[in-house]
Amino acid sequence: MQIAILLFDRFTALDAVGPYEILSRAPGAETVFAAESAGAVHNDSGSLTLVADLALDDVPAPDLVIVPGGPGQSAQMDNETLLGWLRRADATSTWTTSVCTGSLLLAAAGLLDGRRATSHWLALEQLKEYGAEPTGERVVTDGKYVTAAGVSSGIDMGLTLLGRIAGDEYAQAVQLLTEYDPQPPYDSGSPAKAPAAVVEEWRGKSRFILR
Amino acid sequence: MQIAILLFDRFTALDAVGPYEILSRAPGAETVFAAESAGAVHNDSGSLTLVADLALDDVPAPDLVIVPGGPGQSAQMDNETLLGWLRRADATSTWTTSVCTGSLLLAAAGLLDGRRATSHWLALEQLKEYGAEPTGERVVTDGKYVTAAGVSSGIDMGLTLLGRIAGDEYAQAVQLLTEYDPQPPYDSGSPAKAPAAVVEEWRGKSRFILR
Repeated sequence: MQIAILLFDRFTALDAVGPYEILSRAPGAETVFAAESAGAVHNDSGSLTLVADLALDDVPAPDLVIVPGGPGQSAQMDNETLLGWLRRADATSTWTTSVCTGSLLLAAAGLLDGRRATSHWLALEQLKEYGAEPTGERVVTDGKYVTAAGVSSGIDMGLTLLGRIAGDEYAQAVQLLTEYDPQPPYDSGSPAKAPAAVVEEWRGKSRFILR
Repeated sequence: MQIAILLFDRFTALDAVGPYEILSRAPGAETVFAAESAGAVHNDSGSLTLVADLALDDVPAPDLVIVPGGPGQSAQMDNETLLGWLRRADATSTWTTSVCTGSLLLAAAGLLDGRRATSHWLALEQLKEYGAEPTGERVVTDGKYVTAAGVSSGIDMGLTLLGRIAGDEYAQAVQLLTEYDPQPPYDSGSPAKAPAAVVEEWRGKSRFILR
């Protein structure tokens, strides 16, 4: 099973590395990071650099596609090189997935038309504008399309999908090995749970962050 | 505040990127990845490459040190270049931290003698052999030393420490922006919770994984 993780300038690192850490442990997985050009790709803050092993043209038919998000997504929304690759890869993929605003790229490629999907909580309205049917869920599966909410949700998406691919016991073993027994010190991880003032502050800044 | 994240061959990616994604958002943070030599560093499976911006000698006095783990830790346990850097960095750091078997490196450097600390659940006995007092907790703070359990626990460590550094409300905002509202599809993230057969299988393999 070939897993391709898309990289682009100003992606969010955990969006990519969360599901990577889970799904790259699938039986027989060959995981590659791919970008428009092979080589160094910088994240949203510019302080983390991941290497894209291959150019998109060198990964024509992955079995599983993972599209991370990040503020850099907005500059790719009309990049036909990237969107065209997504459409071609999707044509033969077994699973097409995203984390955070990565779902906006899938939607811009026309892959989520009329499908239930999710994204970062600040991007759900924009996801609707691009033809998907946003839900507030953390991980949404609609056919072969699996989308996850913001940033850290890709870990939950990875485990959910690993269970489908390799069975519950295998996924449970990977959860144990990655010691994914979350104990956040606050309960502030969604707009329904965070202090109202914090939510409103960031709603006000969302256009700055996402577009 | 300068944050230095140590990289070494065959580190585990999420160990580093989990706390990175949280703590690099601290006010005024300058985050650098550092390794014995600057340049590409490959993770445990060899399928992910992060770039070390600087060599250790170029990061003499970080305010916050983050040491990830991974199977590559075992090859570093008597690397005096790396251990010496840890001791010197620790001499002036405000916080010295680790994720997963990174705590074994802190212990090998003599920094956890008699201190409460944690590590990957499969490494707790070895941590004791190196002079620390292991606990089964997910995040352990003893003075300026903050250690986290396996792989994904670095996210919880990051939020705990961010609250200490920047205050509860700031940490809650970062939790909201990274949408850290965990909803794992299984409850198998610790040896107390995972199916007994899975736990025993991996206990049997632990020497293969860790040393």
